[in-house]
Amino acid sequence: MTRFRAIAIGNELLSGDLADKHVKRFGAFLRQRGLRLSAAETVPDEIPAIQGALSRAMETADVVLVTGGLGPTSDDLTVEALSDLLGRRRVEDAASAQHIRDRISRYGRTPTEGQLRQAAIPEGARALSNRAGTAPGVHAEHEGAHVFLFPGVPSELEAILEDHLTPWVDSQIATRPLRSAVFKTFGETESAIASRLEGLDWTGAHVAYRATFPEIHVTVYVEEADAEAGARRLDELSAEVRERLHPLIFGEGADASLARAVGDALTAAGATVALAESCTGGLVAQSLTGISGASAWLLEGLVTYSNASKTKRLDVDPTLIERHGAVSEAVARAMAEGVRARSGSDLGLSITGIAGPSGGTPDKPVGTVHLALATAEQTRHLHLNLPFGRERNRHVSAWQGLRMLLQEARTRNT
Amino acid sequence: MTRFRAIAIGNELLSGDLADKHVKRFGAFLRQRGLRLSAAETVPDEIPAIQGALSRAMETADVVLVTGGLGPTSDDLTVEALSDLLGRRRVEDAASAQHIRDRISRYGRTPTEGQLRQAAIPEGARALSNRAGTAPGVHAEHEGAHVFLFPGVPSELEAILEDHLTPWVDSQIATRPLRSAVFKTFGETESAIASRLEGLDWTGAHVAYRATFPEIHVTVYVEEADAEAGARRLDELSAEVRERLHPLIFGEGADASLARAVGDALTAAGATVALAESCTGGLVAQSLTGISGASAWLLEGLVTYSNASKTKRLDVDPTLIERHGAVSEAVARAMAEGVRARSGSDLGLSITGIAGPSGGTPDKPVGTVHLALATAEQTRHLHLNLPFGRERNRHVSAWQGLRMLLQEARTRNT
Repeated sequence: MTRFRAIAIGNELLSGDLADKHVKRFGAFLRQRGLRLSAAETVPDEIPAIQGALSRAMETADVVLVTGGLGPTSDDLTVEALSDLLGRRRVEDAASAQHIRDRISRYGRTPTEGQLRQAAIPEGARALSNRAGTAPGVHAEHEGAHVFLFPGVPSELEAILEDHLTPWVDSQIATRPLRSAVFKTFGETESAIASRLEGLDWTGAHVAYRATFPEIHVTVYVEEADAEAGARRLDELSAEVRERLHPLIFGEGADASLARAVGDALTAAGATVALAESCTGGLVAQSLTGISGASAWLLEGLVTYSNASKTKRLDVDPTLIERHGAVSEAVARAMAEGVRARSGSDLGLSITGIAGPSGGTPDKPVGTVHLALATAEQTRHLHLNLPFGRERNRHVSAWQGLRMLLQEARTRNT
Repeated sequence: MTRFRAIAIGNELLSGDLADKHVKRFGAFLRQRGLRLSAAETVPDEIPAIQGALSRAMETADVVLVTGGLGPTSDDLTVEALSDLLGRRRVEDAASAQHIRDRISRYGRTPTEGQLRQAAIPEGARALSNRAGTAPGVHAEHEGAHVFLFPGVPSELEAILEDHLTPWVDSQIATRPLRSAVFKTFGETESAIASRLEGLDWTGAHVAYRATFPEIHVTVYVEEADAEAGARRLDELSAEVRERLHPLIFGEGADASLARAVGDALTAAGATVALAESCTGGLVAQSLTGISGASAWLLEGLVTYSNASKTKRLDVDPTLIERHGAVSEAVARAMAEGVRARSGSDLGLSITGIAGPSGGTPDKPVGTVHLALATAEQTRHLHLNLPFGRERNRHVSAWQGLRMLLQEARTRNT
């Protein structure tokens, strides 16, 4: 199997100014083809460091994808480092020099020495034309290893990747498209999810977990040369994963979101919703209105932060608040029923809690949250004791509220 | 000079699923101290690859900062790789095991085998307590090289970096602190900000810009060995930057946020606020309630998504909506005045607009947003035409609303 490595060059990547994104881009490019990067290295704009990374990569990989250091300034040293390492002269590529002159003259300028220097490539290498900028890419072969140099500017890298790397890889390398399926879950930890999937037969396949608080995303990958067998295997594994993770999965595919799932389920059920949030401060409203078309099923959302607002806006009986406190099952139920009645919605969701860091008492510590979901038939209640900080307590509370909506709406659809 | 290297471990970093951000974090951490990363490597979750990277790093650096692979699942191999490389057994760290049990039991669960495995560290190494998660970090020394292992979860890495790496580096390594000041701005592009600062004398100093939509953060760095001279230089430059960027700066320092600035200004003014949001769907409420203690000045927030809700909740005259449309100056003014009157707040803020992608008309294209701020004396209005997608249109609209609140509250304080 062809081995790929990436090298990202630039002081700014090591100084805390910029996070590299090109390794991810190369990784995605290769994965679509069933290939993978075996490693990546980030080095500063210094010839010994660049040459060290190039040597290591050429020893251990068949194809080396390098970004950065092709610009016009004195700290752009990649071509010089590669040429010297390979013991080759740098020669001007005539087409690239012409391209630089044409491009600069379009702005009514003449190229600087530095800009023209970009046309120099190692002798015997191939210049890769750059329709998005001045610096050509470079493709050099040395003792069986192929080195590709890309500019660090994302749009220029993208153009050269598309125009040159793509056709080269697709014609020269045996690719084996990887099939994958993403399952997005909420409500369990990564290890709990992993233990639910224990004992599954992962032959010719593997699973990856990604935590994006408060969600865990599970991706199933199938490596299988035969298209039909691969698709069948992915279907089998997906069915297993669906069954084992059943109540936790809220959506499938990279674009799925809990809010979108709620919106889809409400649309299918023909149900409308109104929200009464306290500790989550509008996070449920914010998530649901992030979905285009939410106005079809979201009537209103109220952030009733003060007790007066709970009473005036939601008809919560002030004596309930006095007796049980604003953070209580009784008040949560009254809020949900109140917002439903006042707005005329089918569903009314409420959240009241103590997100922290202050506001806790021995009786009701920080992290105490009450949710209620009112329908025409009944009002359900959920009590949480959350251990996180303010931001995460709010986040989990809102997601629990979204899940109550999702379950109710899905029940109505079955 | 002490040499630092970073290693990022994880298949997801090479497969195109995720871009590494930790190298940048380490780079920034070191730069604040006049130190730098000499290189970084990214390797998959495979023992030989991890060990190869560790060996190379320990040969060429004094301090090796490693992220990832400390989780509870079978592909978390970092501790095993390091232990085997150093020829040490793995031993359970009692305090870490207890911490894991305590943390998991807070959720009413017992730890899985995988979770408990996280307490195992190389013999002779130091466990670095993790207040944000279960896996401890690890600090191991071998032949003069110091290896620090961090979890890949950003919040956990951050906690261990703060609690353990910071005191260690600051006490063990000769640093030359870089003085810096951060100015957070909203309302102009990066190049507009940069041109406002053109012509400033940056001798012995430099400036960096960071765009975190919709804000631009400007950091001024001063390199100066003498503490007093450095502080003086930073003060001078800060005063210049403040003057040149004046109306755009909403806060100073890494912790500053627009919402916090609003909260501080409202507190100082002794003023309360109520919100009526349509297109922003609660984003202003969400931002303001993210500030602990917001209940002192935020009475309520309403997401009046439907026309009926605008009428019922805010007393917006239905004929106004008929005549001008829900997205109009007249309705924005009525919403702000209505929410202020109904809630009894000092300030009432409203936002109504077309975030997109659908809902636009030739008259009122996507990106049309009206904001209004009502006080006892007057109602001010702001009309925006935003060119972004749905998410960013909402974000900028909310930030404009926050800025209106900030200006009003600050005016009351002067």
